Amino acid sequence: MNDRSAPPARIITLLTDFGTQDAYVGAMKGVILSLCPAVQLVDLTHEIPAQDVEAAGWQLFSCYRYFPPGTVHLVVVDPGVGTARRPILVTAGNYSFVAPDNGVLSPILHAEKVSTYVLDKEEFFLEKVSATFHGRDIFAPVAARLACGMAPEKLGRRISDEFRFPAKVPQIDGHVIRGEALFEDRFGNLITNIPEDLFRTFARSRPFAIGVGDVVLRSLHRTYGEAPDQDIVALFGSAGFLEIAEVSGNAAKSLKAVRGMPVTVTVEEQVKKV
Amino acid sequence: MNDRSAPPARIITLLTDFGTQDAYVGAMKGVILSLCPAVQLVDLTHEIPAQDVEAAGWQLFSCYRYFPPGTVHLVVVDPGVGTARRPILVTAGNYSFVAPDNGVLSPILHAEKVSTYVLDKEEFFLEKVSATFHGRDIFAPVAARLACGMAPEKLGRRISDEFRFPAKVPQIDGHVIRGEALFEDRFGNLITNIPEDLFRTFARSRPFAIGVGDVVLRSLHRTYGEAPDQDIVALFGSAGFLEIAEVSGNAAKSLKAVRGMPVTVTVEEQVKKV
Amino acid sequence: MNDRSAPPARIITLLTDFGTQDAYVGAMKGVILSLCPAVQLVDLTHEIPAQDVEAAGWQLFSCYRYFPPGTVHLVVVDPGVGTARRPILVTAGNYSFVAPDNGVLSPILHAEKVSTYVLDKEEFFLEKVSATFHGRDIFAPVAARLACGMAPEKLGRRISDEFRFPAKVPQIDGHVIRGEALFEDRFGNLITNIPEDLFRTFARSRPFAIGVGDVVLRSLHRTYGEAPDQDIVALFGSAGFLEIAEVSGNAAKSLKAVRGMPVTVTVEEQVKKV
Repeated sequence: MNDRSAPPARIITLLTDFGTQDAYVGAMKGVILSLCPAVQLVDLTHEIPAQDVEAAGWQLFSCYRYFPPGTVHLVVVDPGVGTARRPILVTAGNYSFVAPDNGVLSPILHAEKVSTYVLDKEEFFLEKVSATFHGRDIFAPVAARLACGMAPEKLGRRISDEFRFPAKVPQIDGHVIRGEALFEDRFGNLITNIPEDLFRTFARSRPFAIGVGDVVLRSLHRTYGEAPDQDIVALFGSAGFLEIAEVSGNAAKSLKAVRGMPVTVTVEEQVKKV
Repeated sequence: MNDRSAPPARIITLLTDFGTQDAYVGAMKGVILSLCPAVQLVDLTHEIPAQDVEAAGWQLFSCYRYFPPGTVHLVVVDPGVGTARRPILVTAGNYSFVAPDNGVLSPILHAEKVSTYVLDKEEFFLEKVSATFHGRDIFAPVAARLACGMAPEKLGRRISDEFRFPAKVPQIDGHVIRGEALFEDRFGNLITNIPEDLFRTFARSRPFAIGVGDVVLRSLHRTYGEAPDQDIVALFGSAGFLEIAEVSGNAAKSLKAVRGMPVTVTVEEQVKKV
Repeated sequence: MNDRSAPPARIITLLTDFGTQDAYVGAMKGVILSLCPAVQLVDLTHEIPAQDVEAAGWQLFSCYRYFPPGTVHLVVVDPGVGTARRPILVTAGNYSFVAPDNGVLSPILHAEKVSTYVLDKEEFFLEKVSATFHGRDIFAPVAARLACGMAPEKLGRRISDEFRFPAKVPQIDGHVIRGEALFEDRFGNLITNIPEDLFRTFARSRPFAIGVGDVVLRSLHRTYGEAPDQDIVALFGSAGFLEIAEVSGNAAKSLKAVRGMPVTVTVEEQVKKV
């Protein structure tokens, strides 16, 4: 039921750690609209904790596929602004990404077949590039040109050594899936790296025990609120991964969870008695 | 002075309790733009206190009429997500509303002549519906199809038993209007359910006393800042209701106000001496 | 590389102290879209500290030039709402500004050749003007009409006595530039009124000492993070002014900085030994 009378959407999403108190994001939008007036701008979030490239990567990963083909995702979480780290452009299937080469795109790089370009052509930046605000002076103008149809090959030079963090893939170890906590959202829901498909294929209909910190959970819930308040529950979250939540509470806090904390799924006779 | 050369506006407003730290709202927007690319998206607020359907209802009520005819208002404050509560579509005059059937639209249902439809046609949802994020998987796609021209009759089945909270209408009791505090905004202004028209018709030019908690106010101000700092004042707020404010302060806090707290207007000889 | 097939951009930016918890900004956007449906709305920020017209002026000044010609900047930080202070419209080169006449546009008024109009024609406001929300009832409809092509001369009457704060220009005093702290951003970076050009012309290649509070800095950094954590550094910020920052810290807090605090640059033999 697409709206076929309309011109193809030109969308740029923005994801930064700039916050919304200052007009930094506004300046980036001004630059984009100056170069590509018909673009639609969508804020993903600007409240990534300062310099937290892992959080930014997760947020992007959780939603990039819901946008129309052709969408440009612009990510500026950039602790190394002004240093030698490279600005890059990544194309992956229907989407493009413009970001610093600091690992912030890792989940995309691991999930998609990508082509990467280093943005080394100053003629596509703003005329005067500040040392502290490449979001406005480099990334925004490149994203705008890309959204308005300029080819990646014209904007940059192909590379294949972009930086990426190691993939966070759960390990199968006999009767155990060894996963970890990836991220906590603002409700304190703990998102793990264990995909629903893997869990179901592995556990089939056998009894299982999910272990996280001191807690062992022997059932899955469909949604929040099927258990009493303050119960810790396991469910498959909206991004398709196993999630640990506290009903009307904050699981991450209650479990003193940190990113990378082990989360295990043990099936059958391997289930420990507690 | 409308801009007649432009195509008719397709606007979807968004009102949620998702906050702006995570990309949940971004995912909803991606879904909408995939199905209805030419739509304008306007955030009303995403900072409704978690699951506070009353606050969401008030925020929507205070601004929905200022949008152009045809605007779709999408409201996702949904404590019962994934349970049996129904998703609904409500048409009311020039506007449409897409929301869970949990009372969040009550002020609209009381104020307008409405037609309500239960959203029971899965072909108009996303292909895979998660149990925890109907905002993205059910409400966003339906709002998008509606904004792009699909008829309510096609999207859902007519019902008339949608859930609504009791209307909060002030009572007239002799020389007294018995109203209540509806809502406090982030400045601590206390908005009551006493409309300006009712007040003026009732009080005419007679002396009056407004009672709220321990405070009695015998005059109306036109605007904030006509009285000394920390004075508690009464005025008609921008939504057309009697409002209690503290000059350069927080009236809700100073009065220890809670929603439903009585606010009375007493006229003439009934005025108590204090 | 502008997108020439698209119609000329009609952009309105919004800058207020309304916060994002309530739907006040949403109501303004509804009014704008009702009068000028094809407009692009861009939020600069709504988190200006309550009634802080100086902060609003700086935020606007730091980004207005990055928008396309024709952009209308709508500013509502309005402690005097409902009182005799005038609503004004200012045109300056390629941009227009709609705001209360309370000094909030001072940096623009000092930097640009402007024409100012008092908005005294009620037929261009909403039919019913509340005493407490001119953002919705006066400023938004005027900005919308302006963005959709109505001439400033039609919207208001030319004046030349708009209110402005004194210009904050650094003074040259022998071998010393006497400037001041203008503003602190949310990272605690202290932005001064000393432009990069002035500094470079004045210091040439001579040794210099930047004095702020008890701190003396004898070198400039190019970007954050070139020095150890908690070091206080001086650099030229993205708005083109001398900035004092603390590496991975908050310079404004560490220096107990307040706006107006002196910042000096002393060159050559005048450099004091510390």
